[in-house]
Amino acid sequence: MSDELIITPIGGLGEIGKNMMALELGEDIIIVDCGVMFPEGDMLGIDLVLPDFAFLMAKADRIRGIVLTHGHEDHIGALPYFLRNVNVPIYGSDLTLGLVKVRLKEHKMLSVADLHQVEMGDRVQLGAFEVEFFSVNHSIPEGMGLVIRTPLGPVVHSGDFKFDYTPVQGRSADFAKLAELGGEGVFVLLADSTNADSPGFTPSERVVSEAFSEVFSEAAGRVIVVTFASLVSRVQQVVDAAVRHGRKVAVTGFSMEKNTDMAQELGYLKIPEGTLIKIDDIGKLADDKVTILATGSQGEPSAALARMAAGRHAHVSVRAGDTVVLSAHPIPGNEEMVGRIINRLFQRGANVITDQMLPVHVSGHAGQEEEKLLLAMTRPRYFVPIHGELRHLHMHARTAMEMGVPRDNVFVVENGYQLHFTAERGWVGERMPGGYVFVDGAGVGDIGPSVMRNRAALAEAGAVAVAVLMDRETGLVIGEPDLVSRGFIYLPEFGSVIDGARDVLMKDLEGARPLGRGAIANRVRAVLARYFHEQTGRNPVILPLVLTSPA
Amino acid sequence: MSDELIITPIGGLGEIGKNMMALELGEDIIIVDCGVMFPEGDMLGIDLVLPDFAFLMAKADRIRGIVLTHGHEDHIGALPYFLRNVNVPIYGSDLTLGLVKVRLKEHKMLSVADLHQVEMGDRVQLGAFEVEFFSVNHSIPEGMGLVIRTPLGPVVHSGDFKFDYTPVQGRSADFAKLAELGGEGVFVLLADSTNADSPGFTPSERVVSEAFSEVFSEAAGRVIVVTFASLVSRVQQVVDAAVRHGRKVAVTGFSMEKNTDMAQELGYLKIPEGTLIKIDDIGKLADDKVTILATGSQGEPSAALARMAAGRHAHVSVRAGDTVVLSAHPIPGNEEMVGRIINRLFQRGANVITDQMLPVHVSGHAGQEEEKLLLAMTRPRYFVPIHGELRHLHMHARTAMEMGVPRDNVFVVENGYQLHFTAERGWVGERMPGGYVFVDGAGVGDIGPSVMRNRAALAEAGAVAVAVLMDRETGLVIGEPDLVSRGFIYLPEFGSVIDGARDVLMKDLEGARPLGRGAIANRVRAVLARYFHEQTGRNPVILPLVLTSPA
Repeated sequence: MSDELIITPIGGLGEIGKNMMALELGEDIIIVDCGVMFPEGDMLGIDLVLPDFAFLMAKADRIRGIVLTHGHEDHIGALPYFLRNVNVPIYGSDLTLGLVKVRLKEHKMLSVADLHQVEMGDRVQLGAFEVEFFSVNHSIPEGMGLVIRTPLGPVVHSGDFKFDYTPVQGRSADFAKLAELGGEGVFVLLADSTNADSPGFTPSERVVSEAFSEVFSEAAGRVIVVTFASLVSRVQQVVDAAVRHGRKVAVTGFSMEKNTDMAQELGYLKIPEGTLIKIDDIGKLADDKVTILATGSQGEPSAALARMAAGRHAHVSVRAGDTVVLSAHPIPGNEEMVGRIINRLFQRGANVITDQMLPVHVSGHAGQEEEKLLLAMTRPRYFVPIHGELRHLHMHARTAMEMGVPRDNVFVVENGYQLHFTAERGWVGERMPGGYVFVDGAGVGDIGPSVMRNRAALAEAGAVAVAVLMDRETGLVIGEPDLVSRGFIYLPEFGSVIDGARDVLMKDLEGARPLGRGAIANRVRAVLARYFHEQTGRNPVILPLVLTSPA
Repeated sequence: MSDELIITPIGGLGEIGKNMMALELGEDIIIVDCGVMFPEGDMLGIDLVLPDFAFLMAKADRIRGIVLTHGHEDHIGALPYFLRNVNVPIYGSDLTLGLVKVRLKEHKMLSVADLHQVEMGDRVQLGAFEVEFFSVNHSIPEGMGLVIRTPLGPVVHSGDFKFDYTPVQGRSADFAKLAELGGEGVFVLLADSTNADSPGFTPSERVVSEAFSEVFSEAAGRVIVVTFASLVSRVQQVVDAAVRHGRKVAVTGFSMEKNTDMAQELGYLKIPEGTLIKIDDIGKLADDKVTILATGSQGEPSAALARMAAGRHAHVSVRAGDTVVLSAHPIPGNEEMVGRIINRLFQRGANVITDQMLPVHVSGHAGQEEEKLLLAMTRPRYFVPIHGELRHLHMHARTAMEMGVPRDNVFVVENGYQLHFTAERGWVGERMPGGYVFVDGAGVGDIGPSVMRNRAALAEAGAVAVAVLMDRETGLVIGEPDLVSRGFIYLPEFGSVIDGARDVLMKDLEGARPLGRGAIANRVRAVLARYFHEQTGRNPVILPLVLTSPA
C-alpha cells in the first residue's frame, strides 16, 4: 500500500492540474501549487474560481506541505482560502514567496503562514517525498520544476515552463539536471501542455527587448506599455528601454504598483535612481520623456488601460501622439473586450502596437519542439500531460506517443481523476467529488450551478415579479395582482404586455378553487410563462409572491 | 446641392459600413447591402442585431434600390426587416438572390419582393447613380465589387474581397476593370478593412483542397467537416475530397441543408449522382466511406457540431476513430465556446484538425498586401476604409497614407457619420441618430440600452423580489413581507440571509409614518440593498411589490 503513488489534479472543467495537484504515498500527501482560475465567460457575476479541495480535508493531517512552482496567481492565489482550512508549511523561491506575502497581507493572514524559502538545487523532505527544485524558464523569474523522489522512482513536474537560451533575467532551464534525470530513469513526467497546439519553439524573451527598442525609437510622444503585473522581467525590459531612450517611468494600476514595489525591494527589478516618477507628475515632463507602465492588458473594465482609454483615469487620458504597446496576448474569451479597447485607443488618436504587428510579447510556455526536447531528455516511463485544457493534453499525449512513450503509459485525465502507480503498472482510478468553488463578493462556495443557471436565465430574458393576495379564510385570491419587470421589455412602449398579463392572471384565478400559497404561486408562474412566450417569444424568469390577508 | 455626394455607413458600434451603407446625391438614394450583425458577448439574450435605418425612413420615397455585394448574412440578413418598412427594388447576382429568397421565404415575404438578377459587367441606372458590378474573390461565389458612377467621378466599393489567383469556383477578381478605373481616375475608394491587421497576402482557397486531401487520406474512420453553410465553394471542396477518396456525403444542420439544396439547384454546387446520402443512413456504410458536412463551427450550442459533441444529435455521436475538421476560424468572442467543444471532441476520442494545425481554412478577406494592390490599381482621390472595426480602419488608413493618399483625403468614421464630397473637397458631417436595433424573440426594437443594463445587473448578482401589504385606510405596512430570490445565493445554505432580510425590513417599516405605495417600494429597495451588500458583498436587483389590503 505504501508503495502506491496517487496523483490527483484538482479543479473543475478548465486547465488540468494547473491550479493544484496532490501527490499521495502511504500516509503522506504533498500539494503542488494552490492557485485560482479566472472566471470563464458564462460564470456570471463570479469574481474568482477556486479548485475544490474539500476531498483533501478528511485527510488534512496527512498533508506535509505545499510546494510552489512560481509566483503567478493561478499557482498561488488560492493559498489564503486553503490556509483558512489547513495551515501547512509552504515552500517556494524568494520571489514566489514575495508574491505570496502580498496576497496573504491583503487577507490579513501573513502572520499565521509558515513560509519556507528554497533555492534551486535545494532538497526538502516532506514525509516519504523528497522534493528537489530546479530551474525552468517562464514569464516570471524563478520558475521552478520539481523532482519528487519516491520509492518508485523520480516524478518530474515541469511547472509552467519553456526553454529560453537567452533569458532576460535568471538562468536558462537546468538542462544538466534534466539529462541526468533521464539517465537515472524518470518514473513519471508531468509536463506543461499550454502551447501543445503551437508548432516550433517559443521565441526567447530577448526578442521583446528588440521590439521595445524599435517602438521607443519611433515614438514621438508618450509610450504606454500594458502588461501583466507579475511579468517582472517584462517590466524590467520596459524600464531598460525607457532608460536607454532617456525617458522616466510612471506606474499605474493597483497590482502593478504593488508588484513593482515588492520586486524592487527583493532586488528582482533594478530601476536606476531618479527613473521612477509619480503618475501625477507626468504632466511636468515633455511627452517624449514619459513612459507609463500599466495594468489592464486583458481588457478588464476597471484596470488602468480601460480607464485611460475611456477618459476615466485620474491622471492619464490617452490622446493623439501616444503610443500604446499591448505587451500581452488576450486569454481566450477576452479577445472581444481587448478589441474594443484598441478601437477606443485608435479613436483617441493613439498609435497602438500589438503582438500581431511586432514581437512585443512572447509566450511563457513551451511550443511543441520544446515539449519534445523535455521528453527526449527525461525519457519517462509514464507520461501525464498537465496544464492546458483537454485538447492541449491530447495533443501533448500524441507528441509523446510519436516519440515512443507506449500508448498505455500515457494518461490524459480531467481534474478530479486519481492516477495510481505501482512498480508494475499505472491506471486511472476514481474521480474525487468536487470541481470549482466560486468566490462572489464576500461569499466563498455559496454559489453553485443552480444559481449560475438562474443568472443565465435572467441574463437571457430578464425577470418579472408578481405579487398576489390570498384570503386567509377562503384560500382564494383577492384584489388585483401587482407586476414589476426588469430586463424583460422596454416598458414605456410595452406596458400593454404587462397590463395584458394582469388581465389574463385575474381571469385565470377568478374561477379557481381554494388553492393554498404554493399552488397559487405555481399557477401564477405557469399562466404568465405561457402568456409572455405567446406575446413576446421570450421566457423571462417569473418570481411569484403570495401574501396572506391579515387576520 | 445635387452635386454633393453623401455617404453614410449605417449601424452601431461594430464593423463600419459592413451591414449597410447609403449613398445620396440630390434627390436619389441607393443602399449597398442590408445585413445583420451577430450579437456581441454583452448583448444579453439578443438573437440578432439590425442596423438602425430609421433616419432613412423620412426620405424613403427617394430610395431607388438596394444593391447587394454578396450573399452572406451580414450583407443580406436585414432585408426582411427593411422591406417591411420600404419595398424597393433589390439587385444582386444569381446566387446572392438565391440566398435572399431562402431568407424571405422564412419570413413569408418572397412574393412582395422586387428582385433583379444582375451579371458581372451589368450596369444599372438608379436615379443619378449608375452602378456597375465587377468580380472580386471572397469566401462565397459571385462576390461583387461596385463601380458607382456619379457626376463627381466613380466611387468604387470593394465589397468583401480578396485577390485569389487560383479560386476554386468562379473567376479571379477583375483586375482589368480595376486598372482601367485607375486610369480613368477613381473619386472615392471604399475598401474592405477586415484583415487590415494581417501582414502579407491571404492564401488562395486552393490550399484548403490540399489540406483536405491530406486529412482524407489519413482518416481511418468517419470524416466530419464543420464549416459555414454559406461557404458554398468550401462545401464543394469537401464533396470533391469525399468523391476522390470513395466516400459518401451526408449533410446535417438546418442552414447547411437549406443552402446546399439551393446551391445545388442553382448549379453552384456539383455533387455527382449517388454521392449524397441521408444522415440517418450513415450507419449502413462502413465508417471509412462516410463524410459528414455540418454546421456549428462557431460553437453555437444548438448547431449540429455541439449536439454531436455532447451526444444530443439524433443521428451522429462523435466517437473514437472520427476525424473532425474545423474548416472555419472562431470569430472574436467565440474562442472560448469553440475551445470547449474541441475539448469534448477529444474526450470522445476523436482526432480534431483545426486551421492552426493544417490550412483547412483560409480567410475570405484581403491581407495588407492585397489592400495595397487595390490602392495601387485604383489610385483614388479620397479613401474611406470600411468593413472592419475602428482599429482595422485606422490600420488600413495608415496603409493608404503610406502609399501616398494625402492624410486629409482619408476618412475614418464610425457608423452614422455622414461623409460629404463635392468636386472641391470632402468632409465629415453630422452623425445620424441611431445605432443598433435588437431582435429578441418576436420583438424588433423593443429592447434598448436600459433593458440590456438590467439584464447585465441580473446576470451579475441575480434578483430578489419582495412583496408587502399596505393597509388601504392607514397607509401603513401590515403583516409579514414575502421574499423570493433567483441567482442570488444558494438558498438551502443561506436561507438565513433571507430570514434576516425579512426581520430588518419589518423592523424598518414598523415605526414608519404612512407612506403610500411608491414611497414604500423605494424604502424597501433601499433597506434591502444596504442589508444584502453588508451581508454578502453583492448587489442583487431588488424588485419591490406593494399590494393594498382589500376594501
